[in-house]
Amino acid sequence: MRIAELGRRSGIPVPTIKYYLREGLLPPGELSSPNQADYGEAHLNRLQLVRTLLETGHLAIATIREILTEIGRPQPDVHLALGRVLKAIGPDCIGSDAPEVDQLMTRQGWDRVGRGATARQGVADVLLALRRLGADEMLARLDDYAAVARRLAELDLEAVTAYAFPEAKVYQTVIGTILGDALIAGLRRLAQEDLSARAHGHTIHKLP
Amino acid sequence: MRIAELGRRSGIPVPTIKYYLREGLLPPGELSSPNQADYGEAHLNRLQLVRTLLETGHLAIATIREILTEIGRPQPDVHLALGRVLKAIGPDCIGSDAPEVDQLMTRQGWDRVGRGATARQGVADVLLALRRLGADEMLARLDDYAAVARRLAELDLEAVTAYAFPEAKVYQTVIGTILGDALIAGLRRLAQEDLSARAHGHTIHKLP
Repeated sequence: MRIAELGRRSGIPVPTIKYYLREGLLPPGELSSPNQADYGEAHLNRLQLVRTLLETGHLAIATIREILTEIGRPQPDVHLALGRVLKAIGPDCIGSDAPEVDQLMTRQGWDRVGRGATARQGVADVLLALRRLGADEMLARLDDYAAVARRLAELDLEAVTAYAFPEAKVYQTVIGTILGDALIAGLRRLAQEDLSARAHGHTIHKLP
Repeated sequence: MRIAELGRRSGIPVPTIKYYLREGLLPPGELSSPNQADYGEAHLNRLQLVRTLLETGHLAIATIREILTEIGRPQPDVHLALGRVLKAIGPDCIGSDAPEVDQLMTRQGWDRVGRGATARQGVADVLLALRRLGADEMLARLDDYAAVARRLAELDLEAVTAYAFPEAKVYQTVIGTILGDALIAGLRRLAQEDLSARAHGHTIHKLP
């Protein structure tokens, strides 16, 4: 298809698609004449992925380029790819000091996590902010939250493991991690609203 | 304390503090002379909160102003405040159509959630993106994810209920919702890395 149709079918404006092409987020189409390129279904899928990483993942262009490189690698080592993807989307933190997080991981038996894991610094930052803001009751339930997170990770890995090819596993890891955050945050808010309505005896918001 | 000390203790540059004052995110200090104001511990706490809402919550200034209004309301109705806070931080969606989300909520027994709940649209958008990107194994586990989200919401409400005053409950709801997303995302990544290392037989990343 021509770039105009690619724009129409994806719902993404042609100038934006041209920008993605220039930034290397979308591979060039096949030249059908010296100044006309042809695009296929793979381009359409790639556009959806880029849009999701930008809009839901709030990722920078350079980070998306890194992630696309991981996804495009043939016969990847799935565990190493997971580590690289998590590192690309997380804050920079190698070797930082996070004793509280390390103690939590020891209590939970998470003893295979690397010191360079970006989430280690991320969690340390959140714990510091919770403490500064006086969220002591949430902090008191930290191990309960960790146990629930473990359950989420089990579901994530079950879903990824269901795919046969390592390339598919890496692709699904990227989608599942980025969109999973948004899914869990949304479901958590819905469940909060339901529980809060029950706790406070509200029924006015009942679904039709 | 003077604004310089407020800057030093909070780690936030004085020009940024002056910007927050102009934007109404920080109440003015008490005038100790015609052009000198005095700030207290309450200002320090408020600064920490604003920084968290900006940096971790990625919220806009106008949204933060709305949330601060909710937090500052005396003797609030906790359930209505939760609804207003979730609406402020979520996408705009009143009355939108989300049959798949409604069916999920019916299966889960979440029948007290309002049609105007912003997360209803948020979850619908994520489900659409998951489908477009072919994440069928994650979609197949949607009800499992919902059950885990329910457990998170229970923990959230337990933590908030532990505070006696409704003002504190609203404040803790805001902190817990925004920082809770980041906490859960971080813990989920750590648990993923641990499980992935086990599944793939990696031990090299073992903690010291």
